[in-house]
Amino acid sequence: MFNINIGGASTTDTCSGFNSNISLNSPTCLPQASGFLWNSKMVVQMNCRGYINAQFMQPEPSKYSRAVNMEAKSFIQPEHSYFTHHPGRFFYIKDEDDKKTFSVPYEPMRVALDKYNFTVSSSMIQWQVEHLELEIKISFSLATTDVVERWSLSVKNLGSNTRNISIYPYFSIGYMSWMNQSATFNNQLNGIIASSVTPYQKVDEYFKNQTLKDKTFFIANKKPTAWHGDQSVFEGEGGLHSPDALMSEKLHNVEARYQTPVAVLQFRETLRAAEQTDFQFIFGPAKDEIEVAMLSKQYLGEDKTEQAQQEYDEYVAQAKGCLVIETDDHAFDDFVNHWLPRQMFYHGDVNRLSTDPQTRNFLQDSMGMAYIDYTVTRQAFILALSQQQSNGAMPDGILLHETAELKYINQVPHADHCVWLPICLAAYLNETADIDLLHEKIPFSDTKKASSFIAHIELALDWLIKARDHRGLSYIEQGDWCDPMNMVGYKGKGVSAWLSLATAYAINTWCQLCEQYHVNLNGEKLSNYRDIAQSINKAVNQHLWHNKWFARGITDEGRVFGTELDAQGKIYLNPQSWAMLSGATNDSQQQLMISAITSQLMTPFGVMMLAPSYTEMVEDIGRITQKHPGVSENGSVYNHAAIFYVYALYQAGKNDLAFEVMKQVLPTVEQASKTGQLPVYVPNYYRGAYYQFPEQAGRSSHLFNTGTISWLYRCIVEELCGLKGTNDGLIISPKLPSSLSKLSGIRQFRGANIHFTIEKSSEVSRVEVILNGEFLASNRLEGLVSEQTYQMLIRVPFND
Amino acid sequence: MFNINIGGASTTDTCSGFNSNISLNSPTCLPQASGFLWNSKMVVQMNCRGYINAQFMQPEPSKYSRAVNMEAKSFIQPEHSYFTHHPGRFFYIKDEDDKKTFSVPYEPMRVALDKYNFTVSSSMIQWQVEHLELEIKISFSLATTDVVERWSLSVKNLGSNTRNISIYPYFSIGYMSWMNQSATFNNQLNGIIASSVTPYQKVDEYFKNQTLKDKTFFIANKKPTAWHGDQSVFEGEGGLHSPDALMSEKLHNVEARYQTPVAVLQFRETLRAAEQTDFQFIFGPAKDEIEVAMLSKQYLGEDKTEQAQQEYDEYVAQAKGCLVIETDDHAFDDFVNHWLPRQMFYHGDVNRLSTDPQTRNFLQDSMGMAYIDYTVTRQAFILALSQQQSNGAMPDGILLHETAELKYINQVPHADHCVWLPICLAAYLNETADIDLLHEKIPFSDTKKASSFIAHIELALDWLIKARDHRGLSYIEQGDWCDPMNMVGYKGKGVSAWLSLATAYAINTWCQLCEQYHVNLNGEKLSNYRDIAQSINKAVNQHLWHNKWFARGITDEGRVFGTELDAQGKIYLNPQSWAMLSGATNDSQQQLMISAITSQLMTPFGVMMLAPSYTEMVEDIGRITQKHPGVSENGSVYNHAAIFYVYALYQAGKNDLAFEVMKQVLPTVEQASKTGQLPVYVPNYYRGAYYQFPEQAGRSSHLFNTGTISWLYRCIVEELCGLKGTNDGLIISPKLPSSLSKLSGIRQFRGANIHFTIEKSSEVSRVEVILNGEFLASNRLEGLVSEQTYQMLIRVPFND
Repeated sequence: MFNINIGGASTTDTCSGFNSNISLNSPTCLPQASGFLWNSKMVVQMNCRGYINAQFMQPEPSKYSRAVNMEAKSFIQPEHSYFTHHPGRFFYIKDEDDKKTFSVPYEPMRVALDKYNFTVSSSMIQWQVEHLELEIKISFSLATTDVVERWSLSVKNLGSNTRNISIYPYFSIGYMSWMNQSATFNNQLNGIIASSVTPYQKVDEYFKNQTLKDKTFFIANKKPTAWHGDQSVFEGEGGLHSPDALMSEKLHNVEARYQTPVAVLQFRETLRAAEQTDFQFIFGPAKDEIEVAMLSKQYLGEDKTEQAQQEYDEYVAQAKGCLVIETDDHAFDDFVNHWLPRQMFYHGDVNRLSTDPQTRNFLQDSMGMAYIDYTVTRQAFILALSQQQSNGAMPDGILLHETAELKYINQVPHADHCVWLPICLAAYLNETADIDLLHEKIPFSDTKKASSFIAHIELALDWLIKARDHRGLSYIEQGDWCDPMNMVGYKGKGVSAWLSLATAYAINTWCQLCEQYHVNLNGEKLSNYRDIAQSINKAVNQHLWHNKWFARGITDEGRVFGTELDAQGKIYLNPQSWAMLSGATNDSQQQLMISAITSQLMTPFGVMMLAPSYTEMVEDIGRITQKHPGVSENGSVYNHAAIFYVYALYQAGKNDLAFEVMKQVLPTVEQASKTGQLPVYVPNYYRGAYYQFPEQAGRSSHLFNTGTISWLYRCIVEELCGLKGTNDGLIISPKLPSSLSKLSGIRQFRGANIHFTIEKSSEVSRVEVILNGEFLASNRLEGLVSEQTYQMLIRVPFND
Repeated sequence: MFNINIGGASTTDTCSGFNSNISLNSPTCLPQASGFLWNSKMVVQMNCRGYINAQFMQPEPSKYSRAVNMEAKSFIQPEHSYFTHHPGRFFYIKDEDDKKTFSVPYEPMRVALDKYNFTVSSSMIQWQVEHLELEIKISFSLATTDVVERWSLSVKNLGSNTRNISIYPYFSIGYMSWMNQSATFNNQLNGIIASSVTPYQKVDEYFKNQTLKDKTFFIANKKPTAWHGDQSVFEGEGGLHSPDALMSEKLHNVEARYQTPVAVLQFRETLRAAEQTDFQFIFGPAKDEIEVAMLSKQYLGEDKTEQAQQEYDEYVAQAKGCLVIETDDHAFDDFVNHWLPRQMFYHGDVNRLSTDPQTRNFLQDSMGMAYIDYTVTRQAFILALSQQQSNGAMPDGILLHETAELKYINQVPHADHCVWLPICLAAYLNETADIDLLHEKIPFSDTKKASSFIAHIELALDWLIKARDHRGLSYIEQGDWCDPMNMVGYKGKGVSAWLSLATAYAINTWCQLCEQYHVNLNGEKLSNYRDIAQSINKAVNQHLWHNKWFARGITDEGRVFGTELDAQGKIYLNPQSWAMLSGATNDSQQQLMISAITSQLMTPFGVMMLAPSYTEMVEDIGRITQKHPGVSENGSVYNHAAIFYVYALYQAGKNDLAFEVMKQVLPTVEQASKTGQLPVYVPNYYRGAYYQFPEQAGRSSHLFNTGTISWLYRCIVEELCGLKGTNDGLIISPKLPSSLSKLSGIRQFRGANIHFTIEKSSEVSRVEVILNGEFLASNRLEGLVSEQTYQMLIRVPFND
């Protein structure tokens, strides 16, 4: 069996939390195991066997390494699958004496290796392989601001005889263009340059395409013995697992001329006993040879490599959250301290590498940045509101680039984008108390006037309040949070229980913020808002409470759905979670709901977002019912919905259940054989439909773009640790589950470093705080001084 | 080395010419060798190793068998490349006693086979393989009106021992949809049914997609022992060339559930000495299981198979031209009698399976049908003209279906579509003398009025005449015949030499038709037309004759291009050919032009359409210069242009050169190792750039869609054989080259069967015709009686 190691777990001694790495000692047990790296212009997902997904922004997502056929352009899909000619980065190694050949890291020859190790760390992905008495080390990282893959390879002779070997890096370039594609070796640049013309037919596109990087380069720091640029000829009849070209002593220096390019170099090396040879390579897209020359100068060479890596380490090291924890579950600590802020930073810093992030994603991802660099959150909120219409409506996506356009799902009208404004703002204010933001003057997309942040928020709320039917329920249009729920209300009548509740919650959140942060709001208006929120909750109870839980909505034709009357989609998670948040429920309702969720939605792999999954189209619900059962919104363990439930459970004081569901969101070593992924990121879902398709249940989507992250972090900071900011300081209110008796760590808050220990104690009956050795009268930490360090002991009673 | 056999060559004894087939005895020497089959709803190109391209119309081109990744939708591309997971149809054969396994026809195991034969015939593609003392026969054909692949397989024990074997058909289904894809075995239907939902995001598309066939079925006529529906699990670590699933005694009956589907069945068979086992399979797309059940009922079963094959044979047998020839070059005869009309029928009957064929393609492809079934041509001309605007302009594509839209290149304005009307009409009238057509009332696309065919033609000519500049040269807009020549005139000023000459030729052709067929045309108008044609020829001579040949055009900025002053694209073929057709040249010009073509454009693989090929963008010429040098319009041996040259040479009486260039258009056994294709269709191009990239020169595009065909057939009928129709009969004027001293055959003409022999004779000094034993006074055959058979001896003098 395989083994996953969590190395260098972070401690509370430093606030870096960045020494962690995860390694895997088998290329076959979790064949899809992967890590991801990114910078501001690119993102790559590299799997343990040598396959990779890479894209870069110019400014729209593009590829410089493709499969050998004409691939469709698409948004990133879950459960990506790999196949022989999938883009990859391989090194064939041949013993020139006995002709034995293998490939590292594993593909495409799939030779069983003597030793294998795949290690994912924050800013680097590495392999260490031993085979045929050779030790091969591969390191892969990125440039910080350029679109450049940086690779290094070392091969060491572990035996006592001199070895004659050939080393052949094989880097996929793939099908570039039906208009023009070629590849050849450039002596001056010392590498393969593949050239293409992005296909087009209309003359306008010629001008638009002028800036595209239509070349792919693969440059080495040493002169190769020979090279190959033609993918199909390289393989010949042998196939990728046994290419014909490797049969010769030397590659034949073959160009691709309107043939699918590849970058293969051959290095013949003689290694005495214990001798080692090292290589560096860079790979990426370029506009022309001059750009390649510049990149080559910048990134190749021993010192350059070190400098580039240091820069990239520093870039990724910005992914520091405001919390480091230590419990007796080191894997949990490691994930919270290290992988979670890293993934949160990825989301917040580069917005999933989209030029038009969906508004709700943009706001929630930006919320996460409040825990890392709140100035980013601030700018993001201002940018988003500057694209609001003067009637309060938010657009479906936020355009980040002057040439950006709304694409894919952002061309479908969704009704929920406004609700995220006050909700995400709350987390930001908790961290910063930056009430100045609220008075910023911000323009609109459709008028010349500018209004205060406050006015923008209220316009959004007023828009939400208006977008309701005669019952007081919110129209769903062609989707709410649930994108593919597109036919409940496309005729203009259907309403959403979730959106109604989210509207009430958004209004209540805003009212609470106004009070908490002393926003100078007209008292009558505030009370009016509260009345409306209450009336919405009432309307939802009246029209959508159905015995033991809330239905999901009412269709254009007036059909209530998401109840036990439905054969499929009987119960949806979100309306229950958000009813708890919005204040629509009483205790007995909560108990009924939680019990229904537990029996119908909970699985060993997390909580499903609906059940049973739909197995056929329901025309008054829509596209969600056509998705494969157990996948994505159609009843997977959709972590974004799961974390809402966790957050709601914490608000309701259900700490044990909250912690249980939260832990299921996190990937673990223990579940790896089922999820198929390493515990280095939260995937957007695990397969659900647990009772319908048990065999597939629990599998990871392997997709690291998810709105889950910022909420997960918020739950840990504000709820589990109970270290939640407010106007004038920090409120101490930990919510440790029964399973956890001690949790210590460091909380960074408005510049101060608070070393804390939360302990369960039979000596206390309510939370007790001892700050720098002195009891605090209240559970509020006020008057914190920036740059100062505090020691805080928090004693909490055992749970009932 | 390999061997290609031309079997059952047609003779002049029958008019069928349909017994021919071509076979190849190696799967590796011409790895891309292929045949194609089609019916009115689908087309497939099947290669000799088991890979296939298949598409069907619903009504837009769709796939039911795909690669394992998300493929882009595209128009059909030349030089399609194959790779491991390319869609294929394979049969793994395993000896259950010694576990030896191989696959037929060859992929994906690529085991060297004892015997191999791949045979392409008109309506069937077959393999016969021997290996491990087993004889395997595979036949592949189509249904006639349904989208169904019909397969049969037989396995025979050639040895003396009883054999225990497993047979596993593997049919690619591939990546169907990111929304929903699955596959399972359906007991009732006895096969794999893969289900999917065509991905979409907008609600309108849901309704549009209602009729799509989102299922792929693979149904057997016998109960399988076991099955597999999950592509990736089937392969496992072994890869497609050695799948894990074959290691077990029985496949594990694995479903695909949001995994890439495949159709694999296992049949365990025990074969005594000389015993044979037979299977039938059907494969294709369906809307639902009911449709599969119906197709299964219709096509599976011994008698059903025979009946279906007979029907399909009859369908393809319609591809009979009006000519059967016999010379001493049997391969040439075979191609002309058999493969050429077959390809012509494919073009004319199904319009390259497009719903919006480009207007010039539609008219020329329809012209070819005049030699097979003139009623199709007649309808096509009427349909095309009914989409003409009342100002005379023809649209860029002809819409064949009510939901069809102009796509791809048809969204770019081209200036040449009108010229093809009289030019293609001439061939039609030559065959039919159907002057009634000219008086048909035909509507327009933009008014309610209807006008006669004649008026439509003249509106087209008037439009062409108007679309000229102050010099009298034709504006090129964003392209003429040469689609990617899109930036010569996109600013509205650039002109085309070819289009100017084609306009003159179109006008002259119309005038000639009016006289020949006694069209009641105002004499003044006719003479005015002739004057204009003459003035165009004069203008072209004045502005575009450049020393030794005609330039290609004048750009928006007034630059003449396509002359020796250019570094690349010095000489283009088309302006020379069409200057000869339009009457723009005198003898000395012709001599200079032909000599320039011979030295700069002729290659061992045919005549290139320009030289040197462009290697970088020329911004006042356009997209053609960005295509890969030697590919498509950028200087390949583009057969459509080559055949224009042939036709022009025949008009100029250059019979030897015409025949030489024409023979180069045809694929041959001799050139197969260079072209890489079997002589079963004319490809749209062979690689050119002969002097720039000699290694690649001559390779076939393997693309059987080309405007070449109808012109090639016309050249053979009207020019080489010189049996050209006119108003009242047949004009006899053979143009045998020096290399051919005898040509006999049967010409079907307006219902009569004319058995002819053309012989060179030193006894004659001009063409002499002996009809049914009697000398004809003229070279005109008049008063032919339908259904009657004639014997005609034509004696022609030896060439000078």
